[in-house]
Amino acid sequence: MTGKLARYFPIFEWGRAYKRETLTNDLIAAVIVTIMLIPQSLAYAMLAGLPPQIGLYASILPLFAYAIFGTSRTLAVGPVAILSLMTAAAAGKIAAQGSPEYIQAALVLAFLSGAMLFILGLLRMGFLANFLSHPVVSGFITASGIIIAASQVKHILGVDAGGHNLFEIVVSIGEKIGNTNLPTFIIGVASLVFLFGARKLLKPALKRMGLSEKTATILTRTGPVFAVIASILAVALLQLQDEGVKILREVPRELPAIGIPTYDHDVWMQLLGSAALIALIGFVESVSVAQTLAAKRRQRVNPNQELIGLGASSLAAGMSAGYPVTGGLARSAVNFDAGAETPAAGAFTAVGIALATLFLTPYLYYLPQAVLAATIIVAVLSLVDLKSIRQVWNYSKSDFAAMAATILVTLFSGVELGVTTGVGLSLFLHLYNTSRPHFALVGQVPGTHHFRNVNRHAVVISDSALIIRIDESLYFANARFLEDTVYCVLGNRPDLKHLVLMCSAVNRIDASGLESLEAINLRLKDAGVTLHLSEVKGPVMDRLKRSHFLDELTGKVHLTTYDAMEDLDLECVQRAFSKDAQVTSPQAVPCPSLALAGLERV
Amino acid sequence: MTGKLARYFPIFEWGRAYKRETLTNDLIAAVIVTIMLIPQSLAYAMLAGLPPQIGLYASILPLFAYAIFGTSRTLAVGPVAILSLMTAAAAGKIAAQGSPEYIQAALVLAFLSGAMLFILGLLRMGFLANFLSHPVVSGFITASGIIIAASQVKHILGVDAGGHNLFEIVVSIGEKIGNTNLPTFIIGVASLVFLFGARKLLKPALKRMGLSEKTATILTRTGPVFAVIASILAVALLQLQDEGVKILREVPRELPAIGIPTYDHDVWMQLLGSAALIALIGFVESVSVAQTLAAKRRQRVNPNQELIGLGASSLAAGMSAGYPVTGGLARSAVNFDAGAETPAAGAFTAVGIALATLFLTPYLYYLPQAVLAATIIVAVLSLVDLKSIRQVWNYSKSDFAAMAATILVTLFSGVELGVTTGVGLSLFLHLYNTSRPHFALVGQVPGTHHFRNVNRHAVVISDSALIIRIDESLYFANARFLEDTVYCVLGNRPDLKHLVLMCSAVNRIDASGLESLEAINLRLKDAGVTLHLSEVKGPVMDRLKRSHFLDELTGKVHLTTYDAMEDLDLECVQRAFSKDAQVTSPQAVPCPSLALAGLERV
Repeated sequence: MTGKLARYFPIFEWGRAYKRETLTNDLIAAVIVTIMLIPQSLAYAMLAGLPPQIGLYASILPLFAYAIFGTSRTLAVGPVAILSLMTAAAAGKIAAQGSPEYIQAALVLAFLSGAMLFILGLLRMGFLANFLSHPVVSGFITASGIIIAASQVKHILGVDAGGHNLFEIVVSIGEKIGNTNLPTFIIGVASLVFLFGARKLLKPALKRMGLSEKTATILTRTGPVFAVIASILAVALLQLQDEGVKILREVPRELPAIGIPTYDHDVWMQLLGSAALIALIGFVESVSVAQTLAAKRRQRVNPNQELIGLGASSLAAGMSAGYPVTGGLARSAVNFDAGAETPAAGAFTAVGIALATLFLTPYLYYLPQAVLAATIIVAVLSLVDLKSIRQVWNYSKSDFAAMAATILVTLFSGVELGVTTGVGLSLFLHLYNTSRPHFALVGQVPGTHHFRNVNRHAVVISDSALIIRIDESLYFANARFLEDTVYCVLGNRPDLKHLVLMCSAVNRIDASGLESLEAINLRLKDAGVTLHLSEVKGPVMDRLKRSHFLDELTGKVHLTTYDAMEDLDLECVQRAFSKDAQVTSPQAVPCPSLALAGLERV
Repeated sequence: MTGKLARYFPIFEWGRAYKRETLTNDLIAAVIVTIMLIPQSLAYAMLAGLPPQIGLYASILPLFAYAIFGTSRTLAVGPVAILSLMTAAAAGKIAAQGSPEYIQAALVLAFLSGAMLFILGLLRMGFLANFLSHPVVSGFITASGIIIAASQVKHILGVDAGGHNLFEIVVSIGEKIGNTNLPTFIIGVASLVFLFGARKLLKPALKRMGLSEKTATILTRTGPVFAVIASILAVALLQLQDEGVKILREVPRELPAIGIPTYDHDVWMQLLGSAALIALIGFVESVSVAQTLAAKRRQRVNPNQELIGLGASSLAAGMSAGYPVTGGLARSAVNFDAGAETPAAGAFTAVGIALATLFLTPYLYYLPQAVLAATIIVAVLSLVDLKSIRQVWNYSKSDFAAMAATILVTLFSGVELGVTTGVGLSLFLHLYNTSRPHFALVGQVPGTHHFRNVNRHAVVISDSALIIRIDESLYFANARFLEDTVYCVLGNRPDLKHLVLMCSAVNRIDASGLESLEAINLRLKDAGVTLHLSEVKGPVMDRLKRSHFLDELTGKVHLTTYDAMEDLDLECVQRAFSKDAQVTSPQAVPCPSLALAGLERV
């Protein structure tokens, strides 16, 4: 019973062993994360086009929910840059930024995406996230980072600019650059310099001063707080808001109202697709962060329970005037480094944010938007990973195509179309590649029991028995291609007696593949050639036994290719073990379609 | 030059060798097919909800187009049952049956689907058709056959019934069955009995009378003509149209007007998806007929050129007041059996239909619709293949799921949703299966160089070096699962020194798979275990060489698993060759996730 409870409520597992030292460590981490999270919440709410308090609300109840349901000990949940951008894109389709309908749409997005994750978790369908390939996710994050950074430049300049994609944003800023507000610009650039400087210089400096790596990292990461304090003082003292510096102004000093968002059929249906994308991207980003951190402490994260945990968080956000949340990379790393031991640290952080909402917001009145923009720019530029683009290009053109499409479509058309294009293209390319399989004509490597491609190795081949290695599972998309290849071989080798299909790389044969094998067997029978299989795997063999194919097969199924050749052409096998084994030259391919396999399709 | 011309215009190839005997054979075949095609054209036009002359028009120009561009020597192009049903479904979304807009929509469907096939052919993208798996196509044809047969029952009863799916059709007929028109019913049932009888009894009888198999088949297949003649005489003599028997009445005695259909943006866009489905289904059905017939005469059909040929046919239909056409199964078989040698037979058939349109139609005035309905029912019931449903169920539950979904959705929701559901589900299930790969812990089969699954074979295993065989290409959807498995093994075997990943079944490693391998290598390094690969294929190795992975790999890449074990645990290899080799029992799996691989996902 407790096991089952603990499975769905990990809090019962770690809660049992909760000690006084754990409490101390969790409290310290919570204080540090709270300090970091206050400006982040305000900044990401601004990025999402929402009032500042929404960002704070999204950092209270969701953190409690994750503490109860989440499996990562150190993941820090809350608003993140990418989901804020996606929320802005989705809610912008419903209503104008700042309108009550827009705020409501953000709420509904949180509720819907949370519900989807929660249900997927109960159904244990976490594997769905695997269909987002690394290059697509990486490309999407890079492109989103660039878009987010570009969209914040207007706040640094203090101009009113817009645009829905990189091109429009750049053009709009270019048109308005003449209106730049000097005090805003100074504050913005100073913040950028300070924040970048803190990253690049402060940490080494602190370490030289004798602080530990951990402490240096934590102090560096809380850098924004100093920029916040300094800029508030500067604006308040010089009354820069009268010079055109945009400031945060009044933030309501109240806690969020709790309740399920009102149901509006049309709006909810319109937001369904966007909510699914937000759920998927949020989950993939968060799980990879959680797994990286867990691995460092030899802990484990359960992806299906994570769906439930993150789903509960976003549901909580949707029920407490928030917007979509997930685990954030930088924030979780700080939480980890600050020594958080259990999800209780998240709950304590939530208390901190609630207190800040009630008592700290009056002091944030003069906070300039330019500082928040600088915070965002510095945070997202660290997400941009240009190096991995080159690595993927070198390694795989298919992966690169999916990545490049994701980046370009995200940059120039939008986040939602970008990620769907990437997923669609990577699936299509995967299917396309497996639909044009590689076949190899193989021969015996002299002196061994091993058979390899005649085009790559010096091998001994038989005149009467040909071996073709099938380098793909046989399924509907490629079954016909095998037929074509075998018929081509047959046409080129009129004196052939036996054909062996080496199945070491065939992991599955579906009904279409079986039909092709049956057709090949019949055709070879007509031509007086026996068909043999070798190295058929257990699961494949189990299935073949349930069909009539094995009864009709003119030859045999051999355990190994070596066994098959001993049976079919013993003289050739013996030749392979003789001192002066004659090997083929790579040109000796009897059928051009094999040499061209994967290049040309009949 | 001629080679290139002949590639796109196969007529130049067979046209050169055209002899007097070929002409005679083609002419005879054309006469027989014309006799068969006249009632078919009228019947399928009725099924598509179109005036009878549209069916005749679809059997003139399209046949000339195929004769010029097609590669099959014996395929008989024209209206077919399935495409008629799909046309009715698609055009019915635009306008009411019988309206000018409905007829126009059918024309546009032909034009659009023809253009799509033609363009796909020029781009050599015939492989796209491979993504329709055999079970999905077979299920779709079976379900369509059932729907078509059910939809014709109203004509046999002489009642007005409707319905868009099997349920509605059955209910509607049930409600109207009281209105059955007796003379119509007698004609319909008599035709059905005659046509089924001809199939089941006439052919054996004719053969007993000494006719050859071929002649018997041809006479049997032209059976509908006798039903047509007999029923026309009966209705005309008894003036049964006054008793409520619905008849064909006047068919315009003119040839089709030639021209491109007028462009209406909204309508064309609405029909785009339906046209794509019609193109795909028509192509798949036709190519499999063409290939079956070609194989019998050791001829070849080029799928990409077939796209062009069938595309040209449907384009011709769209430019000559027709509706979508493709190669028909029964008709092509008759053409083949009647001795057609070249596509010229098709051109002669077109001339026959043109002459019939001009001079024969007055004699068809009294043709009862019930006879046409009987023709359709007999034709489509031969498409229903219930046996293959059972075979697929026995062989593969995944394939069966896709097939069953196709059948059920087609029957109870509609043809378009049916086929898209089938294709979508078969792709999803294929991806799902490959995303949960099978892994096997392998050991050496005593006395051989061969390594097999410890759960299925009596093998020798080493204590210090573990071998895991990966039974799937490593790609984004399954990469994480390999990591989980390796980490699990690692946790269960603290004294492990070497891990060998046997890659004989790995046909591809994408960028996500590479990242997982890199992560595994690092993690094993931390744990003091070296990572080795064995039996890596040429194309996979080529790609790995372009990354940094091989530099960072703690172990080596071995040509064979046997080589690897000789290196890592020679004593174990020697043990496998000793007389009293100790083999494992199947239970000796150190990590449960391997035993459960493919069953449970972490």
